[in-house]
Amino acid sequence: MRTKEDFLKSISDGRKVYYRGRIIDNIALHPTLKIAAMHAAKLYEYSNRTYEDPQFRKISRFFKIPVSPQDLLERYKLIYDLTMYCNGIFNISQAVGSDALFALLITTKTVDKKFGTNYYERTKKYFEKIVKEDLTIALAQTDVKGDRSKRPFEQVDPDMYLRVVATKSDGIIVRGAKAHTTQSAVSDEIIVIPTRTMKDNDRDYAISFALPVNTSGLKLYIRPIDEVEGNTSAVISKKDYEFETLTIFEDVFVPWDRVFLFKEYEYAGFLANLFATYHRFTALSYRSAMMNLIIGSSILVARSNGIENEKHVRDNIIDMITYKEILRSCAIAAAINPIYIEGLAIPNPIIVNVGKLFANMNFHNMIKI
Amino acid sequence: MRTKEDFLKSISDGRKVYYRGRIIDNIALHPTLKIAAMHAAKLYEYSNRTYEDPQFRKISRFFKIPVSPQDLLERYKLIYDLTMYCNGIFNISQAVGSDALFALLITTKTVDKKFGTNYYERTKKYFEKIVKEDLTIALAQTDVKGDRSKRPFEQVDPDMYLRVVATKSDGIIVRGAKAHTTQSAVSDEIIVIPTRTMKDNDRDYAISFALPVNTSGLKLYIRPIDEVEGNTSAVISKKDYEFETLTIFEDVFVPWDRVFLFKEYEYAGFLANLFATYHRFTALSYRSAMMNLIIGSSILVARSNGIENEKHVRDNIIDMITYKEILRSCAIAAAINPIYIEGLAIPNPIIVNVGKLFANMNFHNMIKI
Amino acid sequence: MRTKEDFLKSISDGRKVYYRGRIIDNIALHPTLKIAAMHAAKLYEYSNRTYEDPQFRKISRFFKIPVSPQDLLERYKLIYDLTMYCNGIFNISQAVGSDALFALLITTKTVDKKFGTNYYERTKKYFEKIVKEDLTIALAQTDVKGDRSKRPFEQVDPDMYLRVVATKSDGIIVRGAKAHTTQSAVSDEIIVIPTRTMKDNDRDYAISFALPVNTSGLKLYIRPIDEVEGNTSAVISKKDYEFETLTIFEDVFVPWDRVFLFKEYEYAGFLANLFATYHRFTALSYRSAMMNLIIGSSILVARSNGIENEKHVRDNIIDMITYKEILRSCAIAAAINPIYIEGLAIPNPIIVNVGKLFANMNFHNMIKI
Amino acid sequence: MRTKEDFLKSISDGRKVYYRGRIIDNIALHPTLKIAAMHAAKLYEYSNRTYEDPQFRKISRFFKIPVSPQDLLERYKLIYDLTMYCNGIFNISQAVGSDALFALLITTKTVDKKFGTNYYERTKKYFEKIVKEDLTIALAQTDVKGDRSKRPFEQVDPDMYLRVVATKSDGIIVRGAKAHTTQSAVSDEIIVIPTRTMKDNDRDYAISFALPVNTSGLKLYIRPIDEVEGNTSAVISKKDYEFETLTIFEDVFVPWDRVFLFKEYEYAGFLANLFATYHRFTALSYRSAMMNLIIGSSILVARSNGIENEKHVRDNIIDMITYKEILRSCAIAAAINPIYIEGLAIPNPIIVNVGKLFANMNFHNMIKI
Repeated sequence: MRTKEDFLKSISDGRKVYYRGRIIDNIALHPTLKIAAMHAAKLYEYSNRTYEDPQFRKISRFFKIPVSPQDLLERYKLIYDLTMYCNGIFNISQAVGSDALFALLITTKTVDKKFGTNYYERTKKYFEKIVKEDLTIALAQTDVKGDRSKRPFEQVDPDMYLRVVATKSDGIIVRGAKAHTTQSAVSDEIIVIPTRTMKDNDRDYAISFALPVNTSGLKLYIRPIDEVEGNTSAVISKKDYEFETLTIFEDVFVPWDRVFLFKEYEYAGFLANLFATYHRFTALSYRSAMMNLIIGSSILVARSNGIENEKHVRDNIIDMITYKEILRSCAIAAAINPIYIEGLAIPNPIIVNVGKLFANMNFHNMIKI
Repeated sequence: MRTKEDFLKSISDGRKVYYRGRIIDNIALHPTLKIAAMHAAKLYEYSNRTYEDPQFRKISRFFKIPVSPQDLLERYKLIYDLTMYCNGIFNISQAVGSDALFALLITTKTVDKKFGTNYYERTKKYFEKIVKEDLTIALAQTDVKGDRSKRPFEQVDPDMYLRVVATKSDGIIVRGAKAHTTQSAVSDEIIVIPTRTMKDNDRDYAISFALPVNTSGLKLYIRPIDEVEGNTSAVISKKDYEFETLTIFEDVFVPWDRVFLFKEYEYAGFLANLFATYHRFTALSYRSAMMNLIIGSSILVARSNGIENEKHVRDNIIDMITYKEILRSCAIAAAINPIYIEGLAIPNPIIVNVGKLFANMNFHNMIKI
Repeated sequence: MRTKEDFLKSISDGRKVYYRGRIIDNIALHPTLKIAAMHAAKLYEYSNRTYEDPQFRKISRFFKIPVSPQDLLERYKLIYDLTMYCNGIFNISQAVGSDALFALLITTKTVDKKFGTNYYERTKKYFEKIVKEDLTIALAQTDVKGDRSKRPFEQVDPDMYLRVVATKSDGIIVRGAKAHTTQSAVSDEIIVIPTRTMKDNDRDYAISFALPVNTSGLKLYIRPIDEVEGNTSAVISKKDYEFETLTIFEDVFVPWDRVFLFKEYEYAGFLANLFATYHRFTALSYRSAMMNLIIGSSILVARSNGIENEKHVRDNIIDMITYKEILRSCAIAAAINPIYIEGLAIPNPIIVNVGKLFANMNFHNMIKI
Repeated sequence: MRTKEDFLKSISDGRKVYYRGRIIDNIALHPTLKIAAMHAAKLYEYSNRTYEDPQFRKISRFFKIPVSPQDLLERYKLIYDLTMYCNGIFNISQAVGSDALFALLITTKTVDKKFGTNYYERTKKYFEKIVKEDLTIALAQTDVKGDRSKRPFEQVDPDMYLRVVATKSDGIIVRGAKAHTTQSAVSDEIIVIPTRTMKDNDRDYAISFALPVNTSGLKLYIRPIDEVEGNTSAVISKKDYEFETLTIFEDVFVPWDRVFLFKEYEYAGFLANLFATYHRFTALSYRSAMMNLIIGSSILVARSNGIENEKHVRDNIIDMITYKEILRSCAIAAAINPIYIEGLAIPNPIIVNVGKLFANMNFHNMIKI
């Protein structure tokens, strides 16, 4: 299997990463950014990360295609446990990518049936490459959007959503930007999917594809990590952390075998939602683990102030435990009651969305506490 | 198996039931109270209510002793489905009794090990009788309590908690009252357990036993059911309903073979909590089903006022669905992660309590909506 | 000044009041309904209820036309204090009527300026009659509405909103029903105003007028008061209480001098909102007083259970005090920052609406507590 | 009157200010810290800041001693308006100091009556100096506290609360540290008061006094202002801002005429609470003004995303307006219903505390929105 060292070596590959106005040569050596690199690399240290797959032999458990409640329960557990291994901070390295790949396997098969295309074969081959090489993958979904009351094709600036600008015999040229791409600067690959439902006029925006992060024309701008570089105590962990980029596609070429959706606008929303369902399940799994960090920190702060047994402090701790256990319960219940499309088990969409809604509506209250 | 008719006949057995100041001869004929009798009887109509047990042959699924996550999942499903069969109203007839019996099977075995008593054998025999005769059981736990800042033995009036007042060769005499005993007037049996943790001085209050509802000295006062008898629209269902009694024990004799705890104060809290854990799991199961009645009613009201598609109404419906699915998820997750004592599977206590806390804290908001 | 006895005698005047299917001859003698009559009559017992008016001599303080912050502050205090005199229950007898009369004085002057009508003179004369005879007034605003997604003229049944059905030389004929008319059965007069903004096609619904409660064709159906007549403890007061009616106008004749708005649909919303502004100010005033009843009851319940000093109980009491004082603060701040139309001081609309929104959004939480 | 230039010149007076490990010579020239200096100086630019006082002639309106509801209403308005002048950011320069001085005038008179001391004369003289020289004042109250379950004298480290370490003929020596002292680095004076109720054994900690900020032994450590110096958009204003210090008293000498409380532990809580009452009133006043900045920013963000008319966005704006107007209403109602001690009007303590509690409990929700 790939090692931590293999991984760290491979991300120094000429990729264009910018931070605070400068280009970064080797991210694993930068005093702040190396936190994200080392954190990503922890995936490869985690002892319980592989299993024997009948098709592939020994592979990362993240790439086990879920076909049963049991598979989804194990995936929840894997994400929860790896988050605990990373001191309560989510390790996205193969999580978000596998979420996207499962959604793509389903979507491409569905699109192929409808339109007679051959996206599924491409996706399957790409998936096999990822699995065999044990790669990490970032996921770029959220466009910068511009005026949200307008659809992609209605925007004054046509590049508010990522789009195809040219079609060639060997591939396509894409242009645009994606916001908040977590850990892209320390991933091997980047998968792009649409961010919303699209209609006829939006067809140039209805695309999905994958690229190595060092592809020519791809530029990654990491947001300023003030909370780590400043002297404040505002950051909950300096050991483990993940950084987002503004990811810019400056007329980037994508070969056909890495294109998974191409103007089939009818399935843009289908793919976006399907990925979201898998990824919200992932979010419920890691956030319930992350709550242990927050609960533990809170108890430590209370103890060091001599107030851990005060009634209002105990009530607050109970509120945090309630929040955590509800997230965890939703993950488990979603795993136990999957729906199935094209043979893949998908975490129950109603429960996943209810859990994520609850998580987001109440997160600020957790921070207040 | 016992039929609806068997059941209805058997509850006209000389039991002392009072309503609005009068004694009620046949509850199944009273214009208001028959609602509760007919609702209870629905248990016996429900088609999917039995299974083939290796020990007992065909028995009620409520009495299947849970020994695995799967058993608990099926119990959740049974309670959910029977509630739906009863138009969204919980059918407590064998649910609360089996919750109590599971808790008693565990507690008595534990007490016997500690004190060399033989409560477990008595409990097991009583359990077998219930199962074979397919009886319904009410559960009396909540004492009237008096001054809540004082323990049972400290109360000015010694009868604020139910207690042993005399011990005889063939049994014991108990005195006191239990509040809010659901459906006792239409049950075959009544099981009594302590309501709280107790200490040395409280030993006379540390008792558990069972009685047929028509036992001499037992008096049941049904609360006024104004919400059904008035003309208001305040009641959510007039088809299905359950009524509580103030249950008075006027120096009632209990034979030894129906006594399951006798002054072992160390286990009063253990039994009370264990029952609560099973019963809160039951509550999560039926309340999530009951929410369908409330959600459906809300949608009907909105539709008849022409506002079903208004944003704020849809937001309210989403809030209700969120509430329901969180309850359901907690039930499922508690089933999937049981703890085990004496071989019985107990729904995960943390998840069960988190779910119940969430349910109670947010119930008023559901009603506001 | 009018006395309690004068008032009680005068409401036995042939008015058509129905309760639980029967016509009620003398409401002051009915075992349940007399609670509302005696409560209304308390207005006339309250010692601090009059002042010397330069125009009218000694009159009820409710009819002092507000022209300054000080007048509004005194009105807030009057409503608060009278509510306390009535054991925490609002006394609407002259409160809602004066709210409506202030709104009508402003609206009619505004309409007259626009259309050259003479509604203001009529309103003024009616106001003087009310003041001199020291009458009580109910206010009928809320139509039964039907399909709320449709405007009044669009309803399948044209009587879903109250409307003019005929115009005669000496007056108009009106038909329809108003819901939730508080204390109409024990008032001398009833004032009718529109419930919403209206447009051109709704002009037949854009009407305002006043009638003695015993007018021919007017029928009052009191809702079932189950919470008092039952044996439950669900009602917070049996000493003081106010009852609502469904108020039916069966082709009722209204003479012109009692018509205050007639098809000027442009001002239906203006009048409705202006009344609401005055009445929400009234609501903030009496509800903050009513909270004393709820807070006091809660403390008594806590004390009798021996838990008044428990931390969570104290937190709950603090939450109730916070709620009460915010309502009171909004009433005071609205009085201090009035707006003025036609010389009358109107409680600050933003603050009044913020206060009422807060009051309604949090009321269920107060009840939960 | 003192000018902005006078003020800026005067704060370059040898005071010991540290920032990110370095001593700062002239705070008004430091790229980050000058924001706080320029913000403080705005007080002297504000056109409506003075009035004609019968005793002092033309003075800052902050120093008008409140003796009536009208005085408190004007003080609320002054703080609200100056906050608006400073782009929604509170200007504490003379606000917190006058809050403390009013509390000291009352407390010292009360203590003198009890103990025959002469603190009131000292306080009055100090107050007159401040008024005549038109100075700015910081307020140091919050001790670092250590173990909060222990009283000051019980702490393992005796310097967890600021205390007297020596008494001399001409004054006292104090030692300790105060946390979160807003704008101390750009104030002329600093007033110290106790942070809590104290008992007999705590008497060395029951002290109050004032010092020029450049007093020998006084050291001010400004917290890292990451949110301004970083590149994030996390800070709501870079034009106006106030910075806090950890304020260290390293055996500082205080002459007797600047000592206002000296071991009269019985009044430590009285002074702390009285200051808090005045200052919470100040907080309600400026925070309601600050909400305009947050509401305005939110609307701008919504507009630039094209979602300003979406129902959920409008609901959020309404929630923010509700929050703001409740704060404002509490300030107004507290002003209208003062209590009086020693002739000074004090904002109503119940309303002030209710308002502050509401403000703090709901602030995180405002930020979530």
